[in-house]
Amino acid sequence: MQPPHCGPHAATGLTALFAPRGVAVVGASRSPGKLGAALARSLGGFAASGGHLALVNGRDAGMHATVSAAAQAGPVDLAMICVPAPACADVLADAARAGAGAAVVCGGGFAEAGGPGIGFQDAVAAVVARTGIRLLGPNTSGFLAPHAGLTASFVPGVAQVRPGRVAVVAASGGVNHALAFLLAEAGHGVSLAVGIGNGVDVSAPDVLDHLAADPHTGAVALHVESVADGPRLVAAVRRLTARTPVVALVVGRHDVAAFAASHTGALATSWRTTRAALAQAGAVLVDDERELVDAVGALSVTRARPAADPGVGVVTAQAGPGLLLLDDLRGRRARVPELGAATRSTLGTLLPPLTYQANPVDTGRPGPELGRVLRAVAADPQVDLVAGYALHEPDAVDLVAAAAEGRDPDVPVVLGVGGTGDAVVASRRALLDAGVAVAADPRGVAAAVGALLADARAQARPVPAGPGQRVPTGIGGAHDEDRAKALLGRLGIATPPRRVCAGRAAAHAALADLGGRVAVKILDAAVRHKTEVGGVHLGITDAAGLDAALDRLGTGRHLVEAMAAPGVDLVVGARRDPVFGPVVLLGLGGTTAEALADVAIRPAPVGAGEAAAMVAELAGRALLDGWRGGPALDPAELGTVVARLGDLLAANPGLDEIEINPLRLTADGLVALDAVVVPASAVPPSEEADDAHPDQ
Amino acid sequence: MQPPHCGPHAATGLTALFAPRGVAVVGASRSPGKLGAALARSLGGFAASGGHLALVNGRDAGMHATVSAAAQAGPVDLAMICVPAPACADVLADAARAGAGAAVVCGGGFAEAGGPGIGFQDAVAAVVARTGIRLLGPNTSGFLAPHAGLTASFVPGVAQVRPGRVAVVAASGGVNHALAFLLAEAGHGVSLAVGIGNGVDVSAPDVLDHLAADPHTGAVALHVESVADGPRLVAAVRRLTARTPVVALVVGRHDVAAFAASHTGALATSWRTTRAALAQAGAVLVDDERELVDAVGALSVTRARPAADPGVGVVTAQAGPGLLLLDDLRGRRARVPELGAATRSTLGTLLPPLTYQANPVDTGRPGPELGRVLRAVAADPQVDLVAGYALHEPDAVDLVAAAAEGRDPDVPVVLGVGGTGDAVVASRRALLDAGVAVAADPRGVAAAVGALLADARAQARPVPAGPGQRVPTGIGGAHDEDRAKALLGRLGIATPPRRVCAGRAAAHAALADLGGRVAVKILDAAVRHKTEVGGVHLGITDAAGLDAALDRLGTGRHLVEAMAAPGVDLVVGARRDPVFGPVVLLGLGGTTAEALADVAIRPAPVGAGEAAAMVAELAGRALLDGWRGGPALDPAELGTVVARLGDLLAANPGLDEIEINPLRLTADGLVALDAVVVPASAVPPSEEADDAHPDQ
Repeated sequence: MQPPHCGPHAATGLTALFAPRGVAVVGASRSPGKLGAALARSLGGFAASGGHLALVNGRDAGMHATVSAAAQAGPVDLAMICVPAPACADVLADAARAGAGAAVVCGGGFAEAGGPGIGFQDAVAAVVARTGIRLLGPNTSGFLAPHAGLTASFVPGVAQVRPGRVAVVAASGGVNHALAFLLAEAGHGVSLAVGIGNGVDVSAPDVLDHLAADPHTGAVALHVESVADGPRLVAAVRRLTARTPVVALVVGRHDVAAFAASHTGALATSWRTTRAALAQAGAVLVDDERELVDAVGALSVTRARPAADPGVGVVTAQAGPGLLLLDDLRGRRARVPELGAATRSTLGTLLPPLTYQANPVDTGRPGPELGRVLRAVAADPQVDLVAGYALHEPDAVDLVAAAAEGRDPDVPVVLGVGGTGDAVVASRRALLDAGVAVAADPRGVAAAVGALLADARAQARPVPAGPGQRVPTGIGGAHDEDRAKALLGRLGIATPPRRVCAGRAAAHAALADLGGRVAVKILDAAVRHKTEVGGVHLGITDAAGLDAALDRLGTGRHLVEAMAAPGVDLVVGARRDPVFGPVVLLGLGGTTAEALADVAIRPAPVGAGEAAAMVAELAGRALLDGWRGGPALDPAELGTVVARLGDLLAANPGLDEIEINPLRLTADGLVALDAVVVPASAVPPSEEADDAHPDQ
Repeated sequence: MQPPHCGPHAATGLTALFAPRGVAVVGASRSPGKLGAALARSLGGFAASGGHLALVNGRDAGMHATVSAAAQAGPVDLAMICVPAPACADVLADAARAGAGAAVVCGGGFAEAGGPGIGFQDAVAAVVARTGIRLLGPNTSGFLAPHAGLTASFVPGVAQVRPGRVAVVAASGGVNHALAFLLAEAGHGVSLAVGIGNGVDVSAPDVLDHLAADPHTGAVALHVESVADGPRLVAAVRRLTARTPVVALVVGRHDVAAFAASHTGALATSWRTTRAALAQAGAVLVDDERELVDAVGALSVTRARPAADPGVGVVTAQAGPGLLLLDDLRGRRARVPELGAATRSTLGTLLPPLTYQANPVDTGRPGPELGRVLRAVAADPQVDLVAGYALHEPDAVDLVAAAAEGRDPDVPVVLGVGGTGDAVVASRRALLDAGVAVAADPRGVAAAVGALLADARAQARPVPAGPGQRVPTGIGGAHDEDRAKALLGRLGIATPPRRVCAGRAAAHAALADLGGRVAVKILDAAVRHKTEVGGVHLGITDAAGLDAALDRLGTGRHLVEAMAAPGVDLVVGARRDPVFGPVVLLGLGGTTAEALADVAIRPAPVGAGEAAAMVAELAGRALLDGWRGGPALDPAELGTVVARLGDLLAANPGLDEIEINPLRLTADGLVALDAVVVPASAVPPSEEADDAHPDQ
């Protein structure tokens, strides 16, 4: 147990919360089903290891009447408040008066419940603001600090969660506990596990900052439901990932808004944008709580060296599970390179000639040579980490010894161990203690490998700097297509030759001047969707066709523009997210891609190299790679376009959005065929929502 | 233990294999790391429970020299053969001579290894053909029959797998063991677990047929790598699912062919087609081995009543995990209906007013009312099954008692129980014993629910009959577009008005006759991809345009056709799969959908109703539902088109393929804009492969 109030956490002000000398349970109860009774039981271990535990209940003569009274008997740094919502503000004020530095309000019935709960939450917040006491909750089931012997939770089983290297920072108290239990069942211990609840005071960024200085924490599991302050969360994750990997699970991929609002408030930004912002800050993103456990468990014991495109060596003692593993790794786009000649030569001396040795390496039934096989694969210059699977067959091979023998300190190993029973559990735990990530099945191995790869890539990514190029500033006001394209021209983005024409004669002159096939469009900044109002006529080659088009377009200014070569259409843009600020978006053009919401997002400004990497996230990326003889994308060229748009938005508060739709990939490169620039606050929110790129 | 040779399995001929009176281990060894030694140890329990166990090794004076010698000492129904591949055929012949009805060849080095191994496998197969002995393997780690006390496997830990209700039929011995272990760790017992290996004799359909008569088996986990006989597998699955649910995991979503070929032979059909065929036969499909365990474990204890679109009631004691669960269920397209007024009224009497009760139902911290809450939700007429989650808090509520109180016999319950330690394990097992499916986390609950829903839908699906309508027969030979469209006309599928024109004058007459905008195309059955050779000119409105088009098309016959209204393009077709026979395919048109391989498949013939259900599988299905004011699909109309194509192919051995690309969805319904008919064997395989719809 750490000495109170002088540990490394003092700077973040959460020492009283996570390392108190004494704890008062307010609303303690003798009735076993009550929260206060459960909490007092949970804290028995804290009392037994020397902490001061005071039970407070004004209606029970055998307990202290108030926190102030309890503080007479010993130090009370932390008040665990288990009284109904209307009474919490007064108790909190009493705790602050008594010298408690922190409190947890466990119960619900506050803002998440609406109605009078909003007032109760305001009252609690007012005490925090007045007294400076740090408050976790309300509406949380508390936290665990196993290294300090502290189980500040009313869920009884959590005392069985052993101290370890994984920290949990969960939006929800229930998820915090669920994750702590899943980690325990997977063989991992916990350094700190916190449920934020309503987050009136202590928020996820506070806890992340606290963990950056925590010597026990090897990796952090972050569960996100909604984000109050995007830039603050991103900054905290970025600071933390510089030293400690963070794995994030973001809720809300699908429409869960109605229930979520009843829980902790509506989701203020999109699931995709939240994930993109966390990834850009260095976090590893996962899709569900099982993969969260696989990922954070692996990263808590090992981490791959930074690499832009790490290679995986696969070693399996059974071909069937190895095939499941390979299939899963391919689905995660892991690179499984063919092993080099030297490696294969070494493997040839270790393995029977009939096994597959190219990568995956199938050892056949494993024997004592497994350690040397692992070492040979790890030594291959193409291999940055090793994924393995073996059934637990102690008579054939000691997996712990083999992993130790096969270990290259620079090349992490993830080993799936199939089996059941105590000997298998002990074996997995011994592997973890030796710094080998473990899983019970091929899926778990693949998930852990995916996390190590994502972390290695994130570490290799340059820290985003400011805009890479100077961009125009002071941009604002209405932009028709010509003005929007002129702006693109200033950014170095190609557009087709065009002429602005105020009358029929000018249009005919433009047709003659441009030659070939032209498009004729209305030119009016107020019309954002020209095609939908019949404002676009394509493929005009002669005067008659032009006249027919102009007849239909009516009077006003027109844009006559050379038709671009055929190709593949993209959509790129930059806009302001209400929570995270400027972001860039990239998707394929056309209704199918739009209906599939096949889009990649990054916070802006973004470097051109990072923007180029967005292409790899598109499900339909094969279309950009010379599909059926079509043009092939130069990702660097696209990355530059996307980065410039992000730079522009970041540098121009007068702009809300800029979108190029379509940006056509042709044999001669990228050409912007249409562009829309939206000045700040020019579009009412409702129209914006209807019109949004499918980032739902 | 069942009485040998007179149990219910006798009909399938696998009694000697799975319920032997005596077992000989050939190649038994005293060296603990050897296969034969491990096998003998595994079979110790069989011997202890009264089975005859004979150890055979010609080089060890303390053992029997041959199986024939061993058979003198007691009955030998099953020979477990652990000798090198070249020696196996002779040992197998000896076993057959000695009266053994079955054998398992454990080792590898046969056809999967190539080279001389092919000959060794042929030799073994010849003994099987000559003697009628049933052979499991080669290249398998054996099987478990825990109800018979029989652990015929060299993997030591499997003796810890307890008897239970889940059967495993795995392509790979390693996967068989991996699954048995995962089931054990999830609290499930096993009725039979078999790894097929190279499948020289005993194949997956044999074991499935055996299981159809097995009283112990409540659900079957089927792992598929490659399929030798598609119709036989489909028939076996269909027979079995009539009584016992089957959950299938098919390997090979991604490109794993090189390694797979080294294992059990190349994948002979596509991953999608295999899944479609198994699903149509009534199996539940899953994506990974964890979901396989979740799914088969749930289905082994409970099964929802047949329903085309079952509704899920969600009950959670903690909002955060409930939100994870809801998000996951939405991703699986589970229907989570708003609960009825009567249900909500009942819930209002049971729960605090501030909790969410619409569905999900958030109980707040659970208390003794949980059983009545579960019962109220299960009683809602919209609810076909209940998904729940609660942390294990025995002081607050006894989950086993609550589930028993809440149980409606017609409405399955899947309950996630978060916690760790022996009490939690015991609680989960008690729930399973009470017929409640359990999981450790929200993801597991959602996976189990997904499986129960898929099974309920499969049960509600009508058994496919023959063709629903009479279709033309005797079709074959070359089809140009006109002839292909005439065939569509006979099937009742709409096409645009068209004229076949042998010369320029006829084409001009056709233009005048059809009016409006026309398409002009070359008409030549030898040209399958008209657009790619410049053989299509669209949007022609006048004589000059027609002449220009005809100039470019050159001489020959042309098709002049009215242009269809704009709309959304689909691709539909029917073709012969080399393994499963006739299949129908449905996808969205356009390169994006093609690049994304967004396609649904069914074996043909298929009913129109089932074909209509294919639409729901398309990722881009939103495009067909009035996307941005466009036309909305009538699924029944599309189902009829797809079903007719399947009927046609099934009834015409002279056809290899028929494809409509595009089939356009217009405001007036579906219109076939182009069609290709491929007569049997008209297309060389290489061209076929290049041109295939993206079913890879």
